[in-house]
Amino acid sequence: MSKFWSPIVHTLTPYVPGEQPKIQNLIKLNTNENPYGPSPKVIAALQAEAADSLRLYPDPDSSRLKAAIAGYHGLQVDQVFVGNGSDEVLAHVFQALLKHDKPLLFPDITYSFYPVYCGLYGIQYETVPLNAQFEIAIDDYLRPNGGIIFPNPNAPTGIPLPLADIERLLRANADSVVVIDEAYVDFGAASAVALVNQYPNLLVTHTYSKSRSLAGLRVGYAVGNRTLIEALIRVKDSFNSYPIDRFAEAGAIAAIQDEAYFQQTRRQVIASREQLVNDLQALRFEVLPSGANFIFARHPSYAGEQLAAGLREQAVIVRHFRKPARIADFLRITIGNEGQNQLFMQAIRSVLGV
Amino acid sequence: MSKFWSPIVHTLTPYVPGEQPKIQNLIKLNTNENPYGPSPKVIAALQAEAADSLRLYPDPDSSRLKAAIAGYHGLQVDQVFVGNGSDEVLAHVFQALLKHDKPLLFPDITYSFYPVYCGLYGIQYETVPLNAQFEIAIDDYLRPNGGIIFPNPNAPTGIPLPLADIERLLRANADSVVVIDEAYVDFGAASAVALVNQYPNLLVTHTYSKSRSLAGLRVGYAVGNRTLIEALIRVKDSFNSYPIDRFAEAGAIAAIQDEAYFQQTRRQVIASREQLVNDLQALRFEVLPSGANFIFARHPSYAGEQLAAGLREQAVIVRHFRKPARIADFLRITIGNEGQNQLFMQAIRSVLGV
Repeated sequence: MSKFWSPIVHTLTPYVPGEQPKIQNLIKLNTNENPYGPSPKVIAALQAEAADSLRLYPDPDSSRLKAAIAGYHGLQVDQVFVGNGSDEVLAHVFQALLKHDKPLLFPDITYSFYPVYCGLYGIQYETVPLNAQFEIAIDDYLRPNGGIIFPNPNAPTGIPLPLADIERLLRANADSVVVIDEAYVDFGAASAVALVNQYPNLLVTHTYSKSRSLAGLRVGYAVGNRTLIEALIRVKDSFNSYPIDRFAEAGAIAAIQDEAYFQQTRRQVIASREQLVNDLQALRFEVLPSGANFIFARHPSYAGEQLAAGLREQAVIVRHFRKPARIADFLRITIGNEGQNQLFMQAIRSVLGV
Repeated sequence: MSKFWSPIVHTLTPYVPGEQPKIQNLIKLNTNENPYGPSPKVIAALQAEAADSLRLYPDPDSSRLKAAIAGYHGLQVDQVFVGNGSDEVLAHVFQALLKHDKPLLFPDITYSFYPVYCGLYGIQYETVPLNAQFEIAIDDYLRPNGGIIFPNPNAPTGIPLPLADIERLLRANADSVVVIDEAYVDFGAASAVALVNQYPNLLVTHTYSKSRSLAGLRVGYAVGNRTLIEALIRVKDSFNSYPIDRFAEAGAIAAIQDEAYFQQTRRQVIASREQLVNDLQALRFEVLPSGANFIFARHPSYAGEQLAAGLREQAVIVRHFRKPARIADFLRITIGNEGQNQLFMQAIRSVLGV
């Protein structure tokens, strides 16, 4: 507390990201990173950027990157917004599109950064409980609101929502923006990007941190109607002229261009997930149906905290949320490569004593 | 205008950065970039980052970078805040430290992003006119305020302020934060970092874009009392967990470690500036005394707009501000390397017909 702080600072409860341990040789399955590195073509493009030209500012509009994203999705350049990771994109979305007199709606169990953004920008919100199966129930969102946001697949549950449900929501909710946060969409959900040209109230956000193996590079984007994108650009140009550095632009473009590598690594993660689900179910775990690069699982006989602590003793880190109580017995486990998943299964068997 | 926009978006007047032309072979002296590329050691460190580890998030706290900056300035790690360019650092500073009931004060002629930040965060401000010599006159700031910010050297004038004046302001203004934006300090002003341990109301911001030749990498920082830094961290952790990507952290650390290269290029820019000032004065230009990597100059017989347009016809871009009227006849000319400066002088002689 300080007289020097702006009043808002006293009220903030910052987001706490998953631990980034500085210890070597841990099996790190706690922040949903991709077990496979970026494409060799991305690495080559990034090496070429380490040059004298770093003395110059990057393109403030990231025009080449926007064109590449627009081309990939079959959209126009003015339907694309880019930012320093999808967390920055989301921050601008909250400030530019989701602050209205009526409350913003999002699930009670979801990405825990959403209420933090609301705190930062003074946005009133209401949480909507997931149903008994931990699913987003669209009918529960059909009420007055100043905007709606949720991930698809949802996090940390991993459960995907069918596109027909999203389209029903877009039709019934024409007066406010619906943001679909598709951070994990490439691992098993239908993308709402296909609906962008039909619904002016739809904004879809993506990240390069998960399916594109570039968490260390910080690139995310949003696509939607050009009016929504214009609001984001106005806020961005009032915040930071150059959020995308030269490496981020070059690396993301190269990632888009290597479609074969993307498809291959994406499919490997999905196949490993199916194997891991089977292995955990054989140990009596309940695993929510996942369309993501992680699973959300609980055991009928062990508390989540106990399991997380037991795994940690064996140098395996997963993510455990104490709150809300409804999910306190679940672990969120990132899908690793084959070797990591086998070590994880050895560790969990040891914790269970089987 | 759109019903989907948050009300604030309708009121924003975004900052317009200097042009980043996509045409080759221009003499680009318009955005105060360094004419010399980054140190070869920085290039090597950046090449090493183009690796499999990009699949992993960067350190959300940028601990290694903060330690390097703290070590460089002889400060503690908790006195350092880092961001995606000093523009992002400044955005957080405005939101975290400069929004109070009393108005923020800054010069009428200064970095034109300051009023833009005020618009974004709803901060009330008053501008304080520079004196007749285009200098910041400290006595004019000794009145009730919710914060004070200015660059030293000021931009676009380039005029440095003696440290004794800043210290007098810090003493007289103990109840609100004084932010000294030292983007250009390494080219000819005394740094207020030396005062950080004495004045809890002092925050100093720096960038790697100018004297460190890394505009393309996006790294800036602030140093100050740990209470001020804590406010910035709270806002940052409510906005984006990972603003500093793996390249930015590695490149900035390597830049700090190559002090010899920094000193050499810094001195070359200063020497070139002195030469350019002499050459322009010989053509009857009035040049404000500069401590920066740019000069602010006007000619008694030519309008600024006319000179800027004439230079552009000869493929030389400088920055010209139409407003306020007091500076409409000045050009802001970035110091280039020897060859660029000679081509600039050829072009300006041709425009003047001498």
